[in-house]
Amino acid sequence: MAYTLGELAERFDCELRGDATIRVEGIDSLANAGESSLTFFSNPALINELKATQAAAVILREQDVADCPVACIVTKEPYATYARMAGLVTAKPAPDPGVHASAAVSDEATVDPAATIAANAVVDGNAIIGARVVVGAGAYVGEDCVVAADCTIMPNAVLSRAVKLGERCIIHPGAVIGSDGFGNAMSSEGWVKVPQVGNVQIGNDVEIGANTTVDCGAIGDTVIGNGVRIDNLCMIAHNVKIGDHTAMAAMTGIAGSAVIGSRCMFAGQSGTVGHISVCDDVVVTGQTMITKDIREPGTYSAGWAGERTGDWAKNVARFKRLKSLIDRVAKLEKDRQ
Amino acid sequence: MAYTLGELAERFDCELRGDATIRVEGIDSLANAGESSLTFFSNPALINELKATQAAAVILREQDVADCPVACIVTKEPYATYARMAGLVTAKPAPDPGVHASAAVSDEATVDPAATIAANAVVDGNAIIGARVVVGAGAYVGEDCVVAADCTIMPNAVLSRAVKLGERCIIHPGAVIGSDGFGNAMSSEGWVKVPQVGNVQIGNDVEIGANTTVDCGAIGDTVIGNGVRIDNLCMIAHNVKIGDHTAMAAMTGIAGSAVIGSRCMFAGQSGTVGHISVCDDVVVTGQTMITKDIREPGTYSAGWAGERTGDWAKNVARFKRLKSLIDRVAKLEKDRQ
Amino acid sequence: MAYTLGELAERFDCELRGDATIRVEGIDSLANAGESSLTFFSNPALINELKATQAAAVILREQDVADCPVACIVTKEPYATYARMAGLVTAKPAPDPGVHASAAVSDEATVDPAATIAANAVVDGNAIIGARVVVGAGAYVGEDCVVAADCTIMPNAVLSRAVKLGERCIIHPGAVIGSDGFGNAMSSEGWVKVPQVGNVQIGNDVEIGANTTVDCGAIGDTVIGNGVRIDNLCMIAHNVKIGDHTAMAAMTGIAGSAVIGSRCMFAGQSGTVGHISVCDDVVVTGQTMITKDIREPGTYSAGWAGERTGDWAKNVARFKRLKSLIDRVAKLEKDRQ
Repeated sequence: MAYTLGELAERFDCELRGDATIRVEGIDSLANAGESSLTFFSNPALINELKATQAAAVILREQDVADCPVACIVTKEPYATYARMAGLVTAKPAPDPGVHASAAVSDEATVDPAATIAANAVVDGNAIIGARVVVGAGAYVGEDCVVAADCTIMPNAVLSRAVKLGERCIIHPGAVIGSDGFGNAMSSEGWVKVPQVGNVQIGNDVEIGANTTVDCGAIGDTVIGNGVRIDNLCMIAHNVKIGDHTAMAAMTGIAGSAVIGSRCMFAGQSGTVGHISVCDDVVVTGQTMITKDIREPGTYSAGWAGERTGDWAKNVARFKRLKSLIDRVAKLEKDRQ
Repeated sequence: MAYTLGELAERFDCELRGDATIRVEGIDSLANAGESSLTFFSNPALINELKATQAAAVILREQDVADCPVACIVTKEPYATYARMAGLVTAKPAPDPGVHASAAVSDEATVDPAATIAANAVVDGNAIIGARVVVGAGAYVGEDCVVAADCTIMPNAVLSRAVKLGERCIIHPGAVIGSDGFGNAMSSEGWVKVPQVGNVQIGNDVEIGANTTVDCGAIGDTVIGNGVRIDNLCMIAHNVKIGDHTAMAAMTGIAGSAVIGSRCMFAGQSGTVGHISVCDDVVVTGQTMITKDIREPGTYSAGWAGERTGDWAKNVARFKRLKSLIDRVAKLEKDRQ
Repeated sequence: MAYTLGELAERFDCELRGDATIRVEGIDSLANAGESSLTFFSNPALINELKATQAAAVILREQDVADCPVACIVTKEPYATYARMAGLVTAKPAPDPGVHASAAVSDEATVDPAATIAANAVVDGNAIIGARVVVGAGAYVGEDCVVAADCTIMPNAVLSRAVKLGERCIIHPGAVIGSDGFGNAMSSEGWVKVPQVGNVQIGNDVEIGANTTVDCGAIGDTVIGNGVRIDNLCMIAHNVKIGDHTAMAAMTGIAGSAVIGSRCMFAGQSGTVGHISVCDDVVVTGQTMITKDIREPGTYSAGWAGERTGDWAKNVARFKRLKSLIDRVAKLEKDRQ
């Protein structure tokens, strides 16, 4: 939708430097934005792109106003303000409420009249679907699920059973929430399935990425706090707790009963073992596995980066000969005496 | 469903110490179980919770009876016995048999009258669906698939083609079985797809986790033994063989034509390269990649755990200077002579 | 379908040594192929299997003709030629064109009369479906998607929005293309979603594996070149560019805005960080993470392979004591002076 700069600045309580009647209809990068596009500047490396921009307006900090050749929207948080304004400008009209003829909604389910149930979606058992919720094409909402207002369940996602979603959550395509945890008891006759009867509780404003899986608790619940962001293809195992505003990049795996603090950030392909605790404000770098409790905020890493295979092979060989090297040093020390 | 302690003890051939007429209706943890809940004790660290439990009954070993303030179900395998009894107590009534009006079942398919085909599920080609099988909402069973009795295919799971499932298997939501293997032949014009014409054979009592993928064989079959447990987001490539009762935690990847023994356990984010063989009773720890045949049972590991990024960076730097250190030691040795 | 050796040799411009009227109806391995099966020989380790084969014909190089007891199809690229001929021999009849009664196709969508829309599939908005495209059961094609001729979208796959597929692409079951990128701006109130308005452009002859995810661009597009092969459970983040004929094995993760060259190969569980560039003809071995630009073709590795946990623990301990060892060597050097 189109907005004037005046409307945007007023709505998000920013200062406008420029013509309040200029209309923006879209968003783009500094380099590509044209006369009806909004953009932002926060990375000093792009200063030349700022100076040459042809955008309708640039969202930036006070200190950068002088370098901007077009209208400015001034804020302390340019990227976040951009995100909010861009969300408004690029918003699509909500789909018409109602249940598509091809969807299957159980007689025992409760669907708000302002919700949309798309083609071939299934709402099962006694599920409750709130106002303005969109259940996408082919998505499944199972028994005992409660989906609060303004959530979007994207196509072919699955809320298996007993999943409580807070308001304004987005479940991306193919994500599976509330599947059974991996509970198996070894017996003399092989593995015996341990029933997984806990639920999943998800706070407000949470996003769960495409094809990510979040298992239900074995006993007691798997809990994801408010504002948490989980990327694609992540695994959140049974009875994990994740604190508010924590973010996990793609392919992160959190094993069973781990407790993750608030405002943590996990980079891609990282993970934790089960039954450990990670405090608030911890950053875990890519492909790092956390195997013990972390009690102090900070950044944690492991592994080493890819290098030429020839160099790597020599480094590994030297590493495997460390015992020999230690022995040689000990002998030198002894001889010296 | 509710059962008396007497019924449970008799059914699973355990000794009961306490009132056989007490009824249990659910399960819970030692700490939280109330007067109608069953629980178990096997971890000595929870001894104080045992002594204070208010459960209807505790499943435990003979040696722990004296510490239990309530009725006891005595067994040598408390966790496995709990799993079995809990499975009974928490069982839900089977869905009504029949084909939902919105499901699409091919005229050439064979569906047992006691099977359930849920809303918007699709059973294609000449697939065969056995007695008491549940094909969940939106799930797909493709041509040449044979699903034996008492299997559950959860919502939006896919049996692509030519998948044979043994009895009592559970395929969790979004899992894909029988997709094409990654077979590509390089030519002067780029990759040429190599047809993948093998099948997938899965034994009895197997669970495949949410969004896990199991590819069909290129020529010959991908084979998963009886009682195997595979967690979410795992990858089982074409022509892999997995022995009975092996368990793989989330995000494990087994590359093409690898042969994995029985009773192995793979922790999360671990994997093997292709065309290797791992014997029975091997444990692979988290994020470890197996690159050679393993011929002796035992535990195998690699990598190192996450540590503070500053410490990690110094350790990596020292590691990268190992050559220099080795040279210095050699010089010291030479000088000494 | 059955073909004579003469037909196959002529079609793919190969030399035939043997009876041109022999008919082949299938494919199999050297060891198992019978009198109506085609096979190939390119791995010298299988020379004894070649000498004993009972296949209808073997596809091989000129130099191996003398060792072949049956008809030969002679080519410089046996495996690629096998792939092409096998594709022909094992091809299944195309499904009947048309829209299944249970599929939901938007009035605004354009579906070629020669396309097939299978049971419970959904074609939304103004999507365009080309000739001979198959949209599998339960698959979803969203608004602004354009699917060129001869593509196959397998069951329950999702083209979320604005995905352009070139000709002859195969999207395997459960794959999600065009889902939102992981764009989040931190604000004083927590994460703010950054709208993801870019598209996904995929070239001709691309395969995307089961349950793999490819996100749309934030601004600008995610681009996958011609002939690219991506295996199962991979993650291609927003604004990534992948050059022609690059192949990525299962569970590879490419972070946002990374640029990957042509003809690269990534082994399983490998990955790159975001905003880096990898040149053409780079091979990355299993579980290796690339953290910097690669400017020279070649093979790159990291990590070390699994070993017995006892040995591994000692190696890690020695590694963690490297500082002490370095100090001891420095003291020896000083004492010597």
